[in-house]
Amino acid sequence: MVDGAVAMPGVMIDYRSDNTGRAAPQILEALIRANQGTALGYGGDAWTAALQQRFSDLFEMSVRIFPVATGTAANALALASLGPSWGIVYCSEAAHINTAEANATGFFGGGIKLSAVDGEHGKIGADALADALAAISPGQLHRGRPAAVSLTQATDLGAVYTLGEVRAIAEVTRRGGLKLHMDGARFANAVARLGCSPADLTWRSGIDIMSFGATKNGGALCDAIVVFSPDIADALAVQLRRAGQVWSKMRFASAQLIAYVENSLWLDMARASNAIAARIAGGLRDISSARLLAPVEANELFLELPSTVMDALEADGFQFYRRSKSLARFVCRFDTTEAEADALVAALHRHLTAETTARAAE
Amino acid sequence: MVDGAVAMPGVMIDYRSDNTGRAAPQILEALIRANQGTALGYGGDAWTAALQQRFSDLFEMSVRIFPVATGTAANALALASLGPSWGIVYCSEAAHINTAEANATGFFGGGIKLSAVDGEHGKIGADALADALAAISPGQLHRGRPAAVSLTQATDLGAVYTLGEVRAIAEVTRRGGLKLHMDGARFANAVARLGCSPADLTWRSGIDIMSFGATKNGGALCDAIVVFSPDIADALAVQLRRAGQVWSKMRFASAQLIAYVENSLWLDMARASNAIAARIAGGLRDISSARLLAPVEANELFLELPSTVMDALEADGFQFYRRSKSLARFVCRFDTTEAEADALVAALHRHLTAETTARAAE
Amino acid sequence: MVDGAVAMPGVMIDYRSDNTGRAAPQILEALIRANQGTALGYGGDAWTAALQQRFSDLFEMSVRIFPVATGTAANALALASLGPSWGIVYCSEAAHINTAEANATGFFGGGIKLSAVDGEHGKIGADALADALAAISPGQLHRGRPAAVSLTQATDLGAVYTLGEVRAIAEVTRRGGLKLHMDGARFANAVARLGCSPADLTWRSGIDIMSFGATKNGGALCDAIVVFSPDIADALAVQLRRAGQVWSKMRFASAQLIAYVENSLWLDMARASNAIAARIAGGLRDISSARLLAPVEANELFLELPSTVMDALEADGFQFYRRSKSLARFVCRFDTTEAEADALVAALHRHLTAETTARAAE
Amino acid sequence: MVDGAVAMPGVMIDYRSDNTGRAAPQILEALIRANQGTALGYGGDAWTAALQQRFSDLFEMSVRIFPVATGTAANALALASLGPSWGIVYCSEAAHINTAEANATGFFGGGIKLSAVDGEHGKIGADALADALAAISPGQLHRGRPAAVSLTQATDLGAVYTLGEVRAIAEVTRRGGLKLHMDGARFANAVARLGCSPADLTWRSGIDIMSFGATKNGGALCDAIVVFSPDIADALAVQLRRAGQVWSKMRFASAQLIAYVENSLWLDMARASNAIAARIAGGLRDISSARLLAPVEANELFLELPSTVMDALEADGFQFYRRSKSLARFVCRFDTTEAEADALVAALHRHLTAETTARAAE
Repeated sequence: MVDGAVAMPGVMIDYRSDNTGRAAPQILEALIRANQGTALGYGGDAWTAALQQRFSDLFEMSVRIFPVATGTAANALALASLGPSWGIVYCSEAAHINTAEANATGFFGGGIKLSAVDGEHGKIGADALADALAAISPGQLHRGRPAAVSLTQATDLGAVYTLGEVRAIAEVTRRGGLKLHMDGARFANAVARLGCSPADLTWRSGIDIMSFGATKNGGALCDAIVVFSPDIADALAVQLRRAGQVWSKMRFASAQLIAYVENSLWLDMARASNAIAARIAGGLRDISSARLLAPVEANELFLELPSTVMDALEADGFQFYRRSKSLARFVCRFDTTEAEADALVAALHRHLTAETTARAAE
Repeated sequence: MVDGAVAMPGVMIDYRSDNTGRAAPQILEALIRANQGTALGYGGDAWTAALQQRFSDLFEMSVRIFPVATGTAANALALASLGPSWGIVYCSEAAHINTAEANATGFFGGGIKLSAVDGEHGKIGADALADALAAISPGQLHRGRPAAVSLTQATDLGAVYTLGEVRAIAEVTRRGGLKLHMDGARFANAVARLGCSPADLTWRSGIDIMSFGATKNGGALCDAIVVFSPDIADALAVQLRRAGQVWSKMRFASAQLIAYVENSLWLDMARASNAIAARIAGGLRDISSARLLAPVEANELFLELPSTVMDALEADGFQFYRRSKSLARFVCRFDTTEAEADALVAALHRHLTAETTARAAE
Repeated sequence: MVDGAVAMPGVMIDYRSDNTGRAAPQILEALIRANQGTALGYGGDAWTAALQQRFSDLFEMSVRIFPVATGTAANALALASLGPSWGIVYCSEAAHINTAEANATGFFGGGIKLSAVDGEHGKIGADALADALAAISPGQLHRGRPAAVSLTQATDLGAVYTLGEVRAIAEVTRRGGLKLHMDGARFANAVARLGCSPADLTWRSGIDIMSFGATKNGGALCDAIVVFSPDIADALAVQLRRAGQVWSKMRFASAQLIAYVENSLWLDMARASNAIAARIAGGLRDISSARLLAPVEANELFLELPSTVMDALEADGFQFYRRSKSLARFVCRFDTTEAEADALVAALHRHLTAETTARAAE
Repeated sequence: MVDGAVAMPGVMIDYRSDNTGRAAPQILEALIRANQGTALGYGGDAWTAALQQRFSDLFEMSVRIFPVATGTAANALALASLGPSWGIVYCSEAAHINTAEANATGFFGGGIKLSAVDGEHGKIGADALADALAAISPGQLHRGRPAAVSLTQATDLGAVYTLGEVRAIAEVTRRGGLKLHMDGARFANAVARLGCSPADLTWRSGIDIMSFGATKNGGALCDAIVVFSPDIADALAVQLRRAGQVWSKMRFASAQLIAYVENSLWLDMARASNAIAARIAGGLRDISSARLLAPVEANELFLELPSTVMDALEADGFQFYRRSKSLARFVCRFDTTEAEADALVAALHRHLTAETTARAAE
C-alpha cells in the first residue's frame, strides 16, 4: 500500500483516477459526529433534513436531494426518471453513461436507449443535437421517442462546457419537449473553473436534474441526485427505494454530503486538483511533441503518447490509464502535490525528447 | 435529537427499529484508518482483498463477498442472480422482500415473481414448499418456472429457523432443482441464538447465496452478498456494477465489514440485542394478557396490544411501530439498555392491567 | 384430430377450453376479402381506420383500439400503461394475470407487482379492495405505490360481475386515485349474460382500459386493447410497437375484429356458449351430489368431483381440465352442441349416482 | 384503397415496403383448411407438430420453430435468449434492430445494449467485429459483457452476405465465446439470391438462432424464431409465453408457415421480387446519374436522388420512402409486375435526364 505518494525514486505516483484517492478527513469526521442517539431511518432524520436545506441554500432554490451510493446509480436513476422506457437519451459518444456503466441507464430505464450526438472534447454540440431530434418525426413510433439529453460537466475528456454552451443545448432540449440532465461527477471542477454559481450552471441554465458527484473530489461513500423540477422528485423517491439506494441509516450519507459542501470544502478541493492539472498542462507547453486531446479545463489530461513513452513512464513509477495504444489519461486529485506534477512534466519532457530524437535518427 | 435514550420522564425510548440506532464506533474508526494512500477503485484494493479472506475464514470455505449499500440491494440482486426473469421465488408472506422492498426483486429480476408459502412465525414450512412446487408441472409454461427459495433468518416475526428446519427446506429446494437464498438481515442474531457456526447455518445446510446484514446490527453504510456457489459470482459482479452498487472507493465499504466481524464484534452486538429482547419477553411472562405473535428468539417482539395501550405507551415516551390496529413491534438494538427494557416491561404491566380492569368493569 | 365432436361412442367431446375450438368462418373469410391491393403498414390502412370507427360506434364513444396477438399481451400491456413500474395492481387470486400468464404483467410493467384481493367466485370485493388500499399510506415508499385494479369479466370461475359490482369497485378505485382495467377475455359472455350495452359495462361504469377478447369466443389470431381514457393511448402505441405487437400487415388483424363484431356475430356466439353452459347447469340441478364452485353465468362450469368420477368421464371420451384433485373445469364453445351438453349431463348423472351408492355401501 | 396497382395514368404504383403487399392466397386458404375440429391450445396441436417436422426437413436438422406475431418480436426475443441482460449485441448501424424496433431488444433483453460495428452495405465486417471484441477485456466489468452478434440477411440496404462472409463473422463470434443471430426478415430473398440451402446459410455457417421472416415475402400474420442450438429453446418457450407471443389457437399460425414453405412457395415469391429489383437495377445502368447506395442483391433499391426528382416521381403516382433528403428506397414485392418495374425505370430516366440538363444549364 502507498503511504503518501511523493516524487521519490521507488515510490509510485498515482494519476490513475480521482477515485483512487483518499477522502477529505472532514467528511469521515462528520460520520463520527453523526453517530449519536437514535434517528428515524430511510432519510427521516435530522441530518437529512439539514442536507435538504443546505443544498437548497447552495443552489438558491428549493431543491430535492437524494444521496445515492455511486455515480452510476445517480446517472441511471436520474435518467430513468425523465422518460418513458421507450425513450431515447442523447449524450456524447464519450459519456460515462455510454462507455462505462454497463448500460445501467438501459437497465434502470427499462429499455431506454442511448444515442450518441457529435461534438468536440466530449461535449454535445447544440446543432448536432437539433439535427438528431429533427431526424425523428412524431409519427415514427418504430424509432422510440426522444426523451432526454444528458451532458457531462466537466466532460469525460477534461473540458468544461461554458454557460453559453449549456444554455444552447438547453434551448434545443426544451424546444424538443425533452428534459435535461447533467452528469456532474466532476461538477465541482466545472464550477471552480467557470467561477459561476451552482445555480447558474444548473437550473438557471435549464438543467432539470443532476448527478451531483462527490466521490471523485474527496468524497467517500456517496454521491447524490439533485432535482430542480419538483414534479420528478416524488416518483424518484419510490424508485430509489426499490433500487436499493436508500440507506436505512441515511444520516451517515447525509452527514458526508453536508461536510462536503461545508465551508466551501468541495470547491477548495476542486480548485486544488484543477490547479495541478493546469500546472502540468502549462509544463507541457514547452514540449512541442506533446499533444492534448482536449483543452485542460478541469482535473484530467488526455495525452497522445507513443507506447514506448508510456512504458517508460510506468518504469519510472507513474500510474495512469492507457485509453488506447496511443492515448494516456492522467487524473489529478485534490491531494496531488505540485512536486508530483513537476515530476510528471519532467518525465514527459525527458521521454518525449528521447523519442523525438530516436525518430529523427531512424 | 436524542442524546442517549434513558428511562427518564420526558425522554423518548426508541424501539422503532434496529436501523434507528448508532453504528458501532469501531466500524467508523475503521473508515478513518482506511483513509491513507491511494488504492485501485471498484474493489481492486487491499482492504477488499482482505475482506474476501476474512469472510472465507469466517465461513470456512472460499466465498465471494460483495459489499452493497442496502439490504434491499443485497436481497434483490442475490435473487436476480438465481434464476431466469420468468422465475418464481418462494418466500414467506411476511418476508421483507415481499412486504417492504417495493418489489425490488421483481424489478432487478426483470419480472421475477414472488410466491408466498405458508409457515409459522414468518417461516416457510418445508411441506408447504413441497406442495407449492408440486403444483406446477414442467409443461405448464404459463405458470412461469420455479427458480429459487428465500428464507429470512431470523424471520420477520422475530423467530429463528433451527438448523433442522433450514436443512429440510434445502432438501425440498434441491429436489426441485432450485437455488436457496437466505435473507440474513439479522443473521448475526440467528447465529447468536443458535450458537452454531456461520458455515453450519449457511452452505453446510444448503444455502447457495445470502444477504449478509450488518446495518441493523450496529453497521453503518453497507451490507453484503455472500456467494457460496461459485458459478453464480462472476455474473453477479457485472450485474452489481450495472446496478450502481459497486463503490469506486470500495475500501471504505470493505473496511466497515472487516471491522464488523473483527474480534466477534458482530456476535457481541447480536447477543446484546437478543438478550434485551429476551429480558422483555421474560418480563411479559408475568402479564397474563400479553400475547406474543411469535416466540422471541432474536431481537424483536411482536405484541398484540389494544390501541389504547399503544396510545398510553406513546404518551409515556416509548417509540415503536404499529403494524396494525392491534399489533405493535418492539425492536431491541445492540445499545438498548437493561433499564430501557425494564421500563418497557413496567409500562406494559401498568397499562395492560389497567386495560384488563377497565374491561372487567364494562 | 377431431373431425367434429358429436355425442357418439368412440368420439371425444371437448370441454377443455374455449381456445381449442374453431374460429367463426366469417372471420377467416374476412381475411380473404382483405387480401387485395396494397395498404400502408403498421395500422395505417383503411381496415384499421374502419376498425377504430366500428368500435367507437360499438362503445358509443371515440375509443382507441389496438389489435394484439394474445390475451396475455393485451392484459400485460394494458396494465403496464396504467402505472409506474413500482406500481401495485390489485386483482383476484384467481385472475388469469395472476395464475396463467407467467407474470407477463411484472415483465412488461418493469417490476409491477400483483396483489390479490379477496372476493367471491373469482371477483374482487369492493370492501376488500378498500381495505387493501387503506393498508398503504402515501409515506410508505417501501410498499410500492397502488397503481391500478384489474377485474376479470366474466371471472375466471365463470361468474359475471353485475353492473353494480363493477361500479362499486370503480368508485373505490377512483377514490384511491388508481386506474381500472377490465380483463375481458370473455367480455362477450358477460355482455350476453347481462344484456347491457358494451358502454354500460365499461367506461360508463368507470373502466379506463380493457382487454377485449375475441379468440376464446370464435376468434382466430387476435384480441385487442380498447382504451377509454385518451391520455393513455399515445404512449401505449409506442409500447406496443416495441413489444412486437404491431403487425406490419395490420389489415389482416383489423379485418378479423371487424368481422367479429359485424351483425352481432360476437354476441350470437357468446349467447350460444352461455346457453350450453346453462343447459348443463340446469341438468345438474337434478343431481344432488353435484357441487358447483361458482354460479354458472357465462360459458364455464367448475365442478367438484371425486377423481373416480373424473376418470370415468375421461373413459367415456369427455375432455376437460382437472384444476385440482377434486375440481374439474368444463368450458363450452360457440359450437358446442346441445347433444354434447346432454351427453355430459347424462354421464355426470350416471357416475355421480354410482359414486353416491358406492359411498353409502362403504 | 388501391384496387390492383398497374402502370396506368392516375394509378399509384407502390414501392413503399414489402409489408404493404398482399399475402399469398395459398397462405390464407391454409387458414380455412385448418378450421376444423378442436385442437389443444398454445401449440399442442397437430399443425404445430407438423410445422416442427416440416422445418426440420427444410433445415436438414432437428430445429425448434416458434411462430411469433412480428419480426420485432422474433428479433428481440431471439436476442434476449442469447445473453445476460448486461450483454452487448453487435450489429450493423443500419440494422433494423438498431433503427426501427423502438429498442425492443433493450426492452426484452432487460437492458441489453446494441453496439454498431462498421461494414459495407449494411453488413458487419468480420475484422471490424474482431476489433470491437478486442476492445473489451474480461476484467472491464463497467463495459458490460459481449454476448451476441446479429447479422441481417439480406441486409437493410438490399445487399446479401455471401456464405464466406457469414462464416468469417461466425468464426470471430465463436472465438469470442458469443452466440450468432441472423435477422432473416428477408431470408428467402437471400436464399434465392445465393442458390444455397437454408442449412448452408444458417447452422452450417455457425448461426445459433434466426428470425425467420415470412410477412415481408407474401406472409400474413406471422414470422418465426428458428432455433439451431437446442440448449436455447426451452427457456425461450417460457419467455415467449410471458411475452404474449404464443397464440392459444396456434394452429392458425402454424398453418400459415407450413403453407409458406410448401412447394417452394417462399422461394418462388422471393425469386419474383428479386427479379423485379434486378430488372430495375438493370434499367438504371443506362442512366449515368443514377447512384445506388449498395448492390441490388435482393428486393430493395436504395437510390440517391435529388429531391426534385423524388417530387416528380410522386407526382407520377409512384409511392416510396424517403430515407433522407437525397435517398429514396424502392421495395419490390412478390406481386410487383414487370410493367411496374419498367414504368419506374422510364420515369427515373425521364426525371434524372431532365435534372442533369437543368443542372448543366445553370
